[in-house]
Amino acid sequence: MPRAQIVGATGYGGLGVLELLLAHPDFEVTSLVARDDAGRRIDEVYPHLTGRCALTVQTAEEAQVGSGCDVVVFATPERVSQTYAKALADAGVPFIDYSGDFRFASAADYALYAARHPSVRETAHGAEALLGRAAYGVSELFRDRIASAPIVGNPGCFAIGMILGLAPLFAGGAVEGGSVSVSSVSGSSGAGKKPAPLQHLSHLNDNVVPYRVLSHQHVIESELTLGRLGKAKGATLDFVPHVIGATRGILSTMHLRLTKSATRDALFARYREYFEGERFVRILDVPPMLKGQAGSNYCDISLVVSEDGRRVVVMSSIDNLMKGQSGSAMQNLNIMFGLDEGAGLDRTPQYP
Amino acid sequence: MPRAQIVGATGYGGLGVLELLLAHPDFEVTSLVARDDAGRRIDEVYPHLTGRCALTVQTAEEAQVGSGCDVVVFATPERVSQTYAKALADAGVPFIDYSGDFRFASAADYALYAARHPSVRETAHGAEALLGRAAYGVSELFRDRIASAPIVGNPGCFAIGMILGLAPLFAGGAVEGGSVSVSSVSGSSGAGKKPAPLQHLSHLNDNVVPYRVLSHQHVIESELTLGRLGKAKGATLDFVPHVIGATRGILSTMHLRLTKSATRDALFARYREYFEGERFVRILDVPPMLKGQAGSNYCDISLVVSEDGRRVVVMSSIDNLMKGQSGSAMQNLNIMFGLDEGAGLDRTPQYP
Amino acid sequence: MPRAQIVGATGYGGLGVLELLLAHPDFEVTSLVARDDAGRRIDEVYPHLTGRCALTVQTAEEAQVGSGCDVVVFATPERVSQTYAKALADAGVPFIDYSGDFRFASAADYALYAARHPSVRETAHGAEALLGRAAYGVSELFRDRIASAPIVGNPGCFAIGMILGLAPLFAGGAVEGGSVSVSSVSGSSGAGKKPAPLQHLSHLNDNVVPYRVLSHQHVIESELTLGRLGKAKGATLDFVPHVIGATRGILSTMHLRLTKSATRDALFARYREYFEGERFVRILDVPPMLKGQAGSNYCDISLVVSEDGRRVVVMSSIDNLMKGQSGSAMQNLNIMFGLDEGAGLDRTPQYP
Amino acid sequence: MPRAQIVGATGYGGLGVLELLLAHPDFEVTSLVARDDAGRRIDEVYPHLTGRCALTVQTAEEAQVGSGCDVVVFATPERVSQTYAKALADAGVPFIDYSGDFRFASAADYALYAARHPSVRETAHGAEALLGRAAYGVSELFRDRIASAPIVGNPGCFAIGMILGLAPLFAGGAVEGGSVSVSSVSGSSGAGKKPAPLQHLSHLNDNVVPYRVLSHQHVIESELTLGRLGKAKGATLDFVPHVIGATRGILSTMHLRLTKSATRDALFARYREYFEGERFVRILDVPPMLKGQAGSNYCDISLVVSEDGRRVVVMSSIDNLMKGQSGSAMQNLNIMFGLDEGAGLDRTPQYP
Repeated sequence: MPRAQIVGATGYGGLGVLELLLAHPDFEVTSLVARDDAGRRIDEVYPHLTGRCALTVQTAEEAQVGSGCDVVVFATPERVSQTYAKALADAGVPFIDYSGDFRFASAADYALYAARHPSVRETAHGAEALLGRAAYGVSELFRDRIASAPIVGNPGCFAIGMILGLAPLFAGGAVEGGSVSVSSVSGSSGAGKKPAPLQHLSHLNDNVVPYRVLSHQHVIESELTLGRLGKAKGATLDFVPHVIGATRGILSTMHLRLTKSATRDALFARYREYFEGERFVRILDVPPMLKGQAGSNYCDISLVVSEDGRRVVVMSSIDNLMKGQSGSAMQNLNIMFGLDEGAGLDRTPQYP
Repeated sequence: MPRAQIVGATGYGGLGVLELLLAHPDFEVTSLVARDDAGRRIDEVYPHLTGRCALTVQTAEEAQVGSGCDVVVFATPERVSQTYAKALADAGVPFIDYSGDFRFASAADYALYAARHPSVRETAHGAEALLGRAAYGVSELFRDRIASAPIVGNPGCFAIGMILGLAPLFAGGAVEGGSVSVSSVSGSSGAGKKPAPLQHLSHLNDNVVPYRVLSHQHVIESELTLGRLGKAKGATLDFVPHVIGATRGILSTMHLRLTKSATRDALFARYREYFEGERFVRILDVPPMLKGQAGSNYCDISLVVSEDGRRVVVMSSIDNLMKGQSGSAMQNLNIMFGLDEGAGLDRTPQYP
Repeated sequence: MPRAQIVGATGYGGLGVLELLLAHPDFEVTSLVARDDAGRRIDEVYPHLTGRCALTVQTAEEAQVGSGCDVVVFATPERVSQTYAKALADAGVPFIDYSGDFRFASAADYALYAARHPSVRETAHGAEALLGRAAYGVSELFRDRIASAPIVGNPGCFAIGMILGLAPLFAGGAVEGGSVSVSSVSGSSGAGKKPAPLQHLSHLNDNVVPYRVLSHQHVIESELTLGRLGKAKGATLDFVPHVIGATRGILSTMHLRLTKSATRDALFARYREYFEGERFVRILDVPPMLKGQAGSNYCDISLVVSEDGRRVVVMSSIDNLMKGQSGSAMQNLNIMFGLDEGAGLDRTPQYP
Repeated sequence: MPRAQIVGATGYGGLGVLELLLAHPDFEVTSLVARDDAGRRIDEVYPHLTGRCALTVQTAEEAQVGSGCDVVVFATPERVSQTYAKALADAGVPFIDYSGDFRFASAADYALYAARHPSVRETAHGAEALLGRAAYGVSELFRDRIASAPIVGNPGCFAIGMILGLAPLFAGGAVEGGSVSVSSVSGSSGAGKKPAPLQHLSHLNDNVVPYRVLSHQHVIESELTLGRLGKAKGATLDFVPHVIGATRGILSTMHLRLTKSATRDALFARYREYFEGERFVRILDVPPMLKGQAGSNYCDISLVVSEDGRRVVVMSSIDNLMKGQSGSAMQNLNIMFGLDEGAGLDRTPQYP
């Protein structure tokens, strides 16, 4: 039974993977690391865990990152895992990271991302030599690589919804000019646990706020990934994220033109074929809705085509804390350890 | 593996127990019965079930209530199960019912309830002879009786929160005059799936609406149950329910005076002892919160005592669709079939 | 002081204009007409009006539509005002209508709309001869015509946000191919007061639901209006509305390419110039937000241009019940009666 | 036209009174003072004020508190106005204060409050000599004193709802033992603009959280006020506040026993008589609801009596930012300056 250590355990990302690992038949959680709440029991930090987990949060110094475990989950901000990467690689301890640190194949790609990120100051990567050993954690597209990589860069929450929603079309070279206009709405939990003006209830309740219009960092990994799939020749995403007064979910509405006209049936057939056998991608006849995947690892996708068969709207929806974060991490951990890919993830969405 | 039939399968109550039974290691769902959506697949009615259940909803005539199953779950309105009760009893098929039909020990008790219920026209019970064979489904209090009864009357959503929150004090004869003032807030899902003015989003969003002030029907079963516990000599609950612009949860704030002053420590000790070994009752050091049990079967309880040790505020919180409805039903089904009481119910609350 | 009669007075649209007229220095409300609540006082239907209005709702027969008033406001469903139009025209009583009945310059234009509308069965107009005497009620664009027309077709809630947001670019012939991709989010109140599954709180709370994707009827008036402005040569809007779990507001995010590249400064200058002197259009430096206009008649607009100066995102936001409905109606009534255009509309948005 | 200076102008309290003063026919705002946003224009801090107010926020040093104005509004935290009080009194500049600094008739009363307040360290008052010149700003009860006092202590948001809701019964000596159990729900805006864990949307959305159970500081002014009204002989309020995932509103549900039984009609008559002529108190036949006063200065009250006529539930509801804060302040300012008491406050609640 593999033993996992969670670094950044008291943020929403750490909490999410902790809950999944606790319920997993084949994983054990050995230590919780976090700076802010060190010394407190996790069920004091989160009373809803009463009776479910009584581990005490430790500092990185106390717990020793990478010690006494078979894998480390970094649910940490940008550039944290970079500082531990070499030591873990030398010690032969694999890890998965929630930030953008290991989502990119090269330092050049990373620099594009770092330059966009509002809290990253430096564009040079701190562990460039290891980028070649990392896999980008979109399980459905890069399963084989994830299975053998010692490092997995878990995808950005907006990115995975766009990538899964558009992959069948980009892979087939079907997107005119590789150009897509995307409007996404996201629940507030994507911004994490730390109070901030934008996430203050009195401000965000009943509200929809566009932000980082045409400048959000998740576009970089999405464009690089989609633009290199199959017959694709690059991708340009005009992306507008909006944060809304809900807790969970990301729904992306994506407008594009096809290189050749297609019928609804043909497009649905393409999507169903592309994702055949995938347990966590569902192609719906009706548009997906924001809370239709709450608490589950599903990515729901549907599409509508114009009467002339040339213009298409693709919609994808996920729980940003599950498929958009901890669920994907759990799925990738299963792949990394050769376990059933859906283990610990067999959950019906919470509705209503 | 017991086979269950769900009648009223397409309401929130039916949906809830369906999801629990689907994930249960030891139950099988054989048929779904509902009037409104008969002929449709359940995952067309509820797209979030795509890939999880593809049963087709049937009419009562098609499915034949009680046929091909070992238990029937009536997730139906008042007075439906009464009409099937005798036939099922004769056939030896046990059932559990979500309405008030079998929550009462006598026709006289039932009449008090029926007279209060806004949608019940008649106070005479339709299957009076069977009331003596029914158990009231508060698992923690009536476990033994539930285990042997062929009929279980699942408790009202407000009732179970009040009963569990107050039982340790009533059982000890500690409530002055047996009198408690209760204000409860409930998510809108308690009113079910059917659109109605009070549950219309534009009306209820950001709103809190008191209703049936001092006249709600759930008071009857609560007063009768609490008033007959241990050393209790009757109970009077001044109960004010409020519906709020949230989907799930019932939080009850209960004010009372003690017959003798007590310290915080003594009261907490009494509660912890009373519920010792109970898996779904948690005594919290801090006040419970409405969404702290979402998606789980927990009832969280805490209390605060005044400086003079005489006045107490007890707070209890549940997910109204789980412990307040389908979770209790699942727990009772486990008891009825001699299974592990927590089977299929091992769920961490969904937070944030 | 002009006297107004409101038909459809107990829906949200009627309520909205009633509140504005009550607070208006120069209007008097003489009668309230509605089918459903006839015989009740309006402050019984809406207790928040207690102490503000005690008129009794009447049937159309009791009140006689057009009688004892100087203008009729039809806050009614599609095809109601058509049936009264000729009689009112003959009697010389002007009216304003909230539905699509009088938004179109010709029967052919109307037929395009009617064919799209989910609740309209017939595409032939019932008062075709009067279409030529009606004005389309986007006050900022058609002020002169509104001032002299006996009939005003108040714009659709989505339409006015798109039209005001895009008018400066279409008028200048600056939109490549006349093609725009639009994603809009709307509060639930746009669907009115009548309970329905999509607007049921348990369903819509915390939710975002795309609907009528590429087929919403408000596109027709938007395309016809924008496509005929200034140097525009037609317009094609790929429009995806989403209803969300909030009560008020419509925020539209609109993606387009420019025929010639432009700087941010040049684009802002164009917008500020185009709307110079307009009291209810505000050009913001930052993206507008859904609740930034709540309770007011403002349309807030901002835009972001890509680094290459060719791709633009325009965002507009309104209170759907004000600028998107009753506020525009009040503004048009002021214009029709030669009053100060902002009378009764001088309101700060309600924030937070 | 009196000139007002607002200190603490960029919090929700300052914003609220600014908006009311801007729309007031007889007041002028001369300066805005705030520490955090000094140097910025108020419409940059709050973009929804674009086109409505372009004053630049100043530091207290720049603006000189009390200079160039006829009244100062302190929308500031505890113990700020105490430090300016003597200088303003000496200069003859009246002021109104939002904190608890001047709500109490004596230093002893204040000390009870200060000891309860979570952010007040010291119980000694900093301007004790001036307490005797201050009025407690419940306009309906203390109108005469407010009219002549140079200092007004604006009431606490929970307090005013409890006091108005219970005053007719306490004044008549009708409350058994002077004892009331109160559960209140409050929108998050009562906690102000500053981000904090409890007000973080991901935590508070869909949530109800009891806090400071039996220990909230607003109880002090409520008990002191009610216990000294008419025939009252003291008051004991067992008060449980709950914060909920809504922005505005406080609804209080209050349980008590009558000293003598009374009919519903008699109780309603007593309430209507007590508040006769009051413009901002409405006695409703149906229970008030949280958003029924949004944006207005109303306090809506209703009550239900038990069948035996002895037990009563009183419910009161206000907009916590209006009657619970800035609306009361505006009403008191009108009284202080001998203006029409409702000037600038004639607003219909925003519904839906």
